[in-house]
Amino acid sequence: MAEVVTTLAGAIASARSARREDGPVPRGMPEDVLAAAAESLGPPDVPADGIGADAALRRLATMLAEYGLDLAHPRAAAHLQPPPLTVAVAADTLASAGNASLDTYDSGPSAIAVERWVVRSLTRLAGLGERADGVLTPGGSMSNLLGLLLARDTAGLARGIDVRRSGVGALRRPVVFCSELAHFSVHRACAALGLGEQAVQPVAVDEHHRMRPEALAAALRGLGDDRTPVAIIATAGSTDFGSVDPLPELAEIAAEHAVWLHVDAAYGFGALFSERLSERLAGLELADSVTVDLHKLGWQPAATSALLVADANAFSALERTVSYLNPADDSEAGYDGLLGRSLQTTRRPDAIKVAASLLAHGRAGLGRMVDVCHELAVHAQRRIAAEPELELISPAELTTVVFRYGGGAHADPDHLDRINSDLRRRLLESGVALIGRTTVRGTRPDDAERVCVKFTLLNQTATAGDIDELIDRVLLAGRACARRTEEGAA
Amino acid sequence: MAEVVTTLAGAIASARSARREDGPVPRGMPEDVLAAAAESLGPPDVPADGIGADAALRRLATMLAEYGLDLAHPRAAAHLQPPPLTVAVAADTLASAGNASLDTYDSGPSAIAVERWVVRSLTRLAGLGERADGVLTPGGSMSNLLGLLLARDTAGLARGIDVRRSGVGALRRPVVFCSELAHFSVHRACAALGLGEQAVQPVAVDEHHRMRPEALAAALRGLGDDRTPVAIIATAGSTDFGSVDPLPELAEIAAEHAVWLHVDAAYGFGALFSERLSERLAGLELADSVTVDLHKLGWQPAATSALLVADANAFSALERTVSYLNPADDSEAGYDGLLGRSLQTTRRPDAIKVAASLLAHGRAGLGRMVDVCHELAVHAQRRIAAEPELELISPAELTTVVFRYGGGAHADPDHLDRINSDLRRRLLESGVALIGRTTVRGTRPDDAERVCVKFTLLNQTATAGDIDELIDRVLLAGRACARRTEEGAA
Repeated sequence: MAEVVTTLAGAIASARSARREDGPVPRGMPEDVLAAAAESLGPPDVPADGIGADAALRRLATMLAEYGLDLAHPRAAAHLQPPPLTVAVAADTLASAGNASLDTYDSGPSAIAVERWVVRSLTRLAGLGERADGVLTPGGSMSNLLGLLLARDTAGLARGIDVRRSGVGALRRPVVFCSELAHFSVHRACAALGLGEQAVQPVAVDEHHRMRPEALAAALRGLGDDRTPVAIIATAGSTDFGSVDPLPELAEIAAEHAVWLHVDAAYGFGALFSERLSERLAGLELADSVTVDLHKLGWQPAATSALLVADANAFSALERTVSYLNPADDSEAGYDGLLGRSLQTTRRPDAIKVAASLLAHGRAGLGRMVDVCHELAVHAQRRIAAEPELELISPAELTTVVFRYGGGAHADPDHLDRINSDLRRRLLESGVALIGRTTVRGTRPDDAERVCVKFTLLNQTATAGDIDELIDRVLLAGRACARRTEEGAA
Repeated sequence: MAEVVTTLAGAIASARSARREDGPVPRGMPEDVLAAAAESLGPPDVPADGIGADAALRRLATMLAEYGLDLAHPRAAAHLQPPPLTVAVAADTLASAGNASLDTYDSGPSAIAVERWVVRSLTRLAGLGERADGVLTPGGSMSNLLGLLLARDTAGLARGIDVRRSGVGALRRPVVFCSELAHFSVHRACAALGLGEQAVQPVAVDEHHRMRPEALAAALRGLGDDRTPVAIIATAGSTDFGSVDPLPELAEIAAEHAVWLHVDAAYGFGALFSERLSERLAGLELADSVTVDLHKLGWQPAATSALLVADANAFSALERTVSYLNPADDSEAGYDGLLGRSLQTTRRPDAIKVAASLLAHGRAGLGRMVDVCHELAVHAQRRIAAEPELELISPAELTTVVFRYGGGAHADPDHLDRINSDLRRRLLESGVALIGRTTVRGTRPDDAERVCVKFTLLNQTATAGDIDELIDRVLLAGRACARRTEEGAA
C-alpha cells in the first residue's frame, strides 16, 4: 500500500507537466485523441513483456492529462460530472487497495459494515422510516433498473405471479408511468427487464417541466383490465432542467391505486444537503424506492449510486442462497453479506468514499457546495436573461441553466438550431470550454423541438467571474457561427 | 491530485499501525465488526458538521485495516478475490481523480480511447476476429446478464420480434441451456431479464465437471415448437472446480442449431496469459459472447469485468440516441462515446487500471502469476491426497482444490458435513485462516450433496510452505471439530 503512494507520486508528476492550461478538453478532433492513445499504448494487443509499473503508469497519466477532460477547470460545464472531493478519491484508493467485496461476510467484513452505515445514513436523510434499506449500485441507470425490477416482481406477486420464476410473459401487458422528461434509462430498463419499451406510458408535464398529477390520475383511471400497472416513476431533478415532479401529489395517486412509486432523484437528492434547497424534495419520504447518485450533487468519483427502498422486504425478489457463498447456517449465525440486495456478486465497496466524505465535510459542508453551485447557476441565469443575444429557456432550479443563442423573434428557428449546435461544437473543438446541449420543446402543443445549450455547474471552486467568462466565450462562438451560417445561406 | 497523495499517506500510516498480524480476517463474530464500525463512524446519520479529510480518512483506514479482510495474507484462500497489483491500484486512483465517464466523447475523451485499446487487446487474446468488440462492466454477473440480453434480443429478432420494444411476453417460452454447475448469476440474469428462472434448462456434467455435449444435443433436438432457444451458456472455469466445458463441441452444436453461445470465462479467461494453461480455453474463439473477470485471474481491484462479443453489431440491441448526450450530428462527426454498449450511462473508466497492468507486466508477467497460483494449487492437491485425514474431491484444474476432512469410508457422512462446515467456521472465527466451503454431489445418480472445503489460491506471493501451514491449520481445526462432534453424539 505504501508502494502505491510512491508509484502514484511519480505518475502525478508526469501528469502535472502534461496538463493543459487553456481549457477543459483537448483541442482538436476525436481522431487526434485516438492517435495519441495509440502512440502511448502501442498496438492494441496485450504486450508480450512488461515495461514495469512506474513506466506504464507515467505513460497513462501523461496521456490522460494531455488528452482527457479536466473537470476542475472552471469552464467545464457540460454534464452532471463533478470534480471529485480529495477525501473521496483518497478513500476510493483504500477501497481499491483492500479489494473487499460486499457479497459475503468473509469477502469484506468491515466494508459491509461501512455500506450498512452509509445506507442507513442516506435513508434517514431521505426521511424514509426504520424499515428502510438500500444498496449501492454502479450508477443511476442501474439503480433505476433495480428499482423497476423490485416494482415489477412486487406487482407480479400482488397478482399471484412469481415473475422471477415464470418470467414477465405471465404478466398481463405491463405499464410504467413516467413524465415525458424522465431519464432515458427508464426506457432502457423496461427493455432490459423484458417489459418492453412499449410499457412506458409518458405523462405530460406542466410549463415548469413537472409531471401533471391530474394527467397521471386520468391515465391510471383509464387503464384497461388487460394492463398491469408496474410503477410510477417520478423525477426529482430532471437532467436538463433540475425540475422536481410534485412528489406528494404523485405519492397520493400511487397509494390510491396501490402502485409502486419510484423516485429518480439521481440528480436532485444532493439538494437534501442544503438547508435552502432541501424543501424541493418534500414528499421523497413517501416513495417506495429512490435512486441517489452521489457522483452528481455529492462530489464523489463515479460510480456512487444507491437504490433506497422504504421496506427492506422489497429485496426478497433478489434473495438467493448459494452453497459456496452464503450457506443457510452461516446466515443464521449472523455471517451475512449483501448478496441479496444486488444483481452483482463481487461488488466494490463504493461506500467507503461516501463514508469518508460524509464524515469529513458533514451535511453543512456538502450543503455549502450545493448552495455555491446553485448560486453560480442563478448568476448564469441572470446574465443570460440580461444578454440580448441570448434567450433564457429554463431558469436555475438546481445547478443547470438552459438557454439559446440568438433567440430573437425575427430569426429563422432552423438557422438558430444550427448555430446553437455549431457553437457548442466550436467551443469543444477549440478546447476552451465545454458546455452541454439538448433539445427543448416549446410549451404549445405544436411547438417543435429546438436545439438549446446548457450549463451544468458542479464545480464549487468556480466563481461568478468564471461564469461571466464562460458566457463571453459562448457569445463569441455564437457570433462566429451565426456569421458562418449567414454566409452559407447567402 | 497531489493533495490526494498527502492525504493517503497519512491514512496509510494509521492503517499500518492498526494492521493485524495473526491472520487474514478479524477474530470474533460479525457483531464485533459492526460494533467497531459503529464506534468508528458514529451513529448512522449524516453528521451535521465535518471533522476534515485527514481525520475522516484515518478513522476509516484504521477500522478497515483492523476489521477487514487482508487478501495479501498467505492464509486468505476462500474466494476468487486476489490481492490487487500495485500498478492497478495506483492507476485506479488516476481513474477516480479524473472522474471521466465513458458514455459520451466529451465526458472522457482519453478514457474512451483507453477502453477501446483494452477491449481490442482482450478480443485478440481471446482469438475473436476483427469484427469483435466489447465493453467493461461492473462485474461478471453483469457481464453474463448483458451477454444473455444480447442473446435474447438476437433470438427475438431472428423470429421477427423486437423484444426491446415489445417485451419478452411476445416470445414463445424461452429456454437457456447451461451446465448444472453454471454460475448462479445465469439464473439471476434470466429472472432479471424477464425470461424467468424456469427458462434455465440445466445440462448434465461428466465426472470432470464439464457439460456433456451429447446431453445438450439431445435437449436441443427434443425442444418443442413452442420453445425459443435463447442461448447456450458454457462455463470456462467453474467457481469451485475450475473445470472448462468442452468449448469446440458446444460451439459446433450451437452453430448447428443457430443458437447464441455465451462463454462464462469469468474465472478461466486469465489462463490465456499462461503458455502452459492457455490450451484449456481452446474453442473460446468460437463464442458469440464471452465474460471475462480480470478481478479474478488478472489481479485487478474489483470490478474489472468485460463482455466481449464476436460481432460488434450485437450491441445494436442497446443503441440509443439521446439529445443531451449523443445527438446524431455528433456521432456522424466522430464524437462517439460508448453509451450504446452498456446498460450504464455514467460509467467509471475501469480500463485504465487494466491498461496500466497489461503494459507494466505484459502477458509474460501475468502468465507467471497464473502459473505460480496453479502450482500452489497442485501442491495443495498433492499434500491433501497424501493426508489420510483428508479426502481430495477435485484436483487443481486452475487454482482451486476441493477436499473434505475425514473422508474415511467408516465415517457417518452427515457427521462429516457438520465437521467440515464447523472447521471452516472455526478458522474464520479465530481469524487465523480463511478457506472456502461448498457442496459437491457425488458421481452416482443417488449421491447426496456433501459439504466440502475449498482453497482458492490467487496470492502469487504465497509459497508452498504457506500452503503446508494452511493445511496444518485445517487438520488441527478438523480434529478439534471432530472431537466436539463425537462428544455431542456420545
